[in-house]
Amino acid sequence: MKIIKTLSEMKSYTAEKRREHQTIGFVPTMGYLHQGHLALMQAARKDCAVVIASIFVNPIQFGIGEDYEEYPRDLTRDGALAESVGVDAIFAPSVGEMYPKGYHTFVHVESLTDYLCGASRPGHFRGVTTVVAKLFNIIQPDLAYFGQKDAQQVTVIERMVEDLNMNVKIVRVPIVREEDGLAMSSRNVYLNPEERKQALVLSRSLAEAKSLVEKGERDAKVAKDRIRDMISQAPLARIDYIEIVDGRTMEPVEILRGKVLIALAVKFGKTRLIDNVLLEV
Amino acid sequence: MKIIKTLSEMKSYTAEKRREHQTIGFVPTMGYLHQGHLALMQAARKDCAVVIASIFVNPIQFGIGEDYEEYPRDLTRDGALAESVGVDAIFAPSVGEMYPKGYHTFVHVESLTDYLCGASRPGHFRGVTTVVAKLFNIIQPDLAYFGQKDAQQVTVIERMVEDLNMNVKIVRVPIVREEDGLAMSSRNVYLNPEERKQALVLSRSLAEAKSLVEKGERDAKVAKDRIRDMISQAPLARIDYIEIVDGRTMEPVEILRGKVLIALAVKFGKTRLIDNVLLEV
Repeated sequence: MKIIKTLSEMKSYTAEKRREHQTIGFVPTMGYLHQGHLALMQAARKDCAVVIASIFVNPIQFGIGEDYEEYPRDLTRDGALAESVGVDAIFAPSVGEMYPKGYHTFVHVESLTDYLCGASRPGHFRGVTTVVAKLFNIIQPDLAYFGQKDAQQVTVIERMVEDLNMNVKIVRVPIVREEDGLAMSSRNVYLNPEERKQALVLSRSLAEAKSLVEKGERDAKVAKDRIRDMISQAPLARIDYIEIVDGRTMEPVEILRGKVLIALAVKFGKTRLIDNVLLEV
Repeated sequence: MKIIKTLSEMKSYTAEKRREHQTIGFVPTMGYLHQGHLALMQAARKDCAVVIASIFVNPIQFGIGEDYEEYPRDLTRDGALAESVGVDAIFAPSVGEMYPKGYHTFVHVESLTDYLCGASRPGHFRGVTTVVAKLFNIIQPDLAYFGQKDAQQVTVIERMVEDLNMNVKIVRVPIVREEDGLAMSSRNVYLNPEERKQALVLSRSLAEAKSLVEKGERDAKVAKDRIRDMISQAPLARIDYIEIVDGRTMEPVEILRGKVLIALAVKFGKTRLIDNVLLEV
């Protein structure tokens, strides 16, 4: 497996693969890989002749006071994990390589980013869409893989790709969970044992809401209240948001109909966790 | 010459050319072609196997109260002109094709767009960079041609291409002028005979400023004042801006050094004209 650190080397690597008519699959990550990331890489491995993963903790998607500096980094460990699932090359550029002096260009998806994490983290999605647009131009993948765990993120990226007529197909990969139900996240390492235990309420409350809807509930308020009641019983949980939105526009809905996303963000100590379930009602 | 109106047809046309390893040159325009546009197409013709021009009056780069509705349009005339200089295909999409319902994504270059036309026309360059990013993704040209007439525009686009790691080379083509010196512009047709006559003061005052600098003047204020004095003698002229900026950052300079752009925007009646001279001091 190759580890590539410069733009020019990355561009020439993929240019060669394109000349050989090899399908390129791309998995952008911020590293500190877990089973969720590996599932993306495995999906790419199944579909594509060449699999490239990027590992880049993108400063412009972190807000002031967020965990950019502390975000866990371990390229040696990540390299071994990526290699174990058959990744061909890792792109791990420096911040200076991605945002040199005089950098001034940003890609922004409006409206969809006004809700959920976009409301809690101003500027976050602008940072995400900008770095993903850059990575798509550098790597020019045929397919790119994103986790349903970050449901708003993948929806925003699909919107960007469609709006800007980008030549890449976005593949959504289902959430990977720990055996007890906690959604995999690089941030889970921050949790102390008690927080880790109480964090189970997220997936459980979503499962309960899903079950309510399957039994016929269509009132968003009823479903959200049930989730809120359950989470409130975890004394360490501080709710950021519990929301039910249209799966495409991310706008809150009152009545569940069509594709809807039930999404939540909850803090345990300093650790902010997200989880969601996408339903076709 | 082909006239292509849909995204899908345009994408498959250029995909075929790429498969045949043909170099694609692209000239984006808003139509109502004049010798300035034709110079871009001729430059592309010289460099490239395939030359594609777009004709699209881009609504999102016009401000409220600007001339989007009245902007001159004549696809038959434009087609004949483009064909006369050897253009292979014109891409003339509808507004609905470019900005369908639910469109939400914008590309913005900060800082460089705070000055000159960016200051006078808020949102203008965001519209330009967004449509050009889309057109680059649709056509995937090897080279794209822009006129030095819109000096800030080409600088902003170069910035976007570099920042977002786009795979296209930007070629600047010198300003084409009428025999008496007026810079070619689709908006010149708006001028009445008296305005047309007085508009000559733009190129003349820029030539005078250039001559001052060539004789050793390095004080931006002196050069700008000379231009202002000359233009003020045209009774129909209303100055929007006269500015001297760094040729790369577009930031105003006080002392002329390195690559500097002397740029101005002046209104005659409802018609806003721009002109500039780029100097290496």
